[in-house]
Amino acid sequence: MASLHRKRDLPVNRVRELLEPGPVLLVTSGDGDVRDVMTLGWHCVMEFSPALVGCLISRANHSFDLIRRSRECVLNIPSAEMVDTVVAVGNSTGAEIDKFTRFGLGCEPASDVNPPLLADCFANLECRVSDDALVDSHDFFVLEVVRVHVSPKAGTARTLHYRGGGRFMISGETIDRSDGFTKVS
Amino acid sequence: MASLHRKRDLPVNRVRELLEPGPVLLVTSGDGDVRDVMTLGWHCVMEFSPALVGCLISRANHSFDLIRRSRECVLNIPSAEMVDTVVAVGNSTGAEIDKFTRFGLGCEPASDVNPPLLADCFANLECRVSDDALVDSHDFFVLEVVRVHVSPKAGTARTLHYRGGGRFMISGETIDRSDGFTKVS
Repeated sequence: MASLHRKRDLPVNRVRELLEPGPVLLVTSGDGDVRDVMTLGWHCVMEFSPALVGCLISRANHSFDLIRRSRECVLNIPSAEMVDTVVAVGNSTGAEIDKFTRFGLGCEPASDVNPPLLADCFANLECRVSDDALVDSHDFFVLEVVRVHVSPKAGTARTLHYRGGGRFMISGETIDRSDGFTKVS
Repeated sequence: MASLHRKRDLPVNRVRELLEPGPVLLVTSGDGDVRDVMTLGWHCVMEFSPALVGCLISRANHSFDLIRRSRECVLNIPSAEMVDTVVAVGNSTGAEIDKFTRFGLGCEPASDVNPPLLADCFANLECRVSDDALVDSHDFFVLEVVRVHVSPKAGTARTLHYRGGGRFMISGETIDRSDGFTKVS
């Protein structure tokens, strides 16, 4: 189990290492008593610095209004061992239950935003809304990652990648092809 | 080796099954003699129907102007066996060489757009630009997928997921958790 006090900060311009492979995320939002958590697979790295990430957060989700109003959220990356939590969170709505209590999600305070960090996730990315130009038309938020916490186990964590139909791909081996790069980034 | 005549059409509202796990793509663009191919890892499913996909195509790429001008491209999904091609394409520029010739990329005509399909990729998604509102500010194109061709091998293909630093994660096993879904999608 990861815990914040064992996590370290990662420079925000390195978020692509965490997000570009395409893992399922758990997004926390809200402020104080009003809070929510949702699963998210529709995200996209958009820039190194500032560290921008685009997220499609459908207005059908309880989280949509919380994020639009507060202009903050946290992208938490669960490891494959958390698949049951990911499925439970994704198949319930914060309009009816407090998912944190129902699913026993341990929280820790963020540094720069109000939504909580999920303690058991191996990485937590604190975000603020940077551009909402596509929110009305496409429910698409451009977020700026302002702080990243990663567990020492982040390098070996296996991640979940949603295939649709209730099926998840679990990340496999990593290969190094840096020899073929003219400029490694 | 995949070949178009062995591929079948997949309904466009199922593109999330191909893209949501986060594979590296090879994007073809251009028209006739003017053509290019680039690697892309920064993409995001945005809607089932119409089938929308957001792509961050930096203006530093030769492909940027071709796609902005023609408003078309093809998202080709390479399997892990094509890693050397992916690295070669990603570390060269179409402003200096014809990458198709240099790297021996077999092409087949698309059905609905001008850019070619890469024959050896197990899936080819023909796309048109749907929304360019974030192109000037973020180099972000919202594409509509208008036709999808998939190889019979698509279901078992291993894909490449870029981690940065010249390293790729190769997709691992798939697990079925549909029993935990209230509505499987």
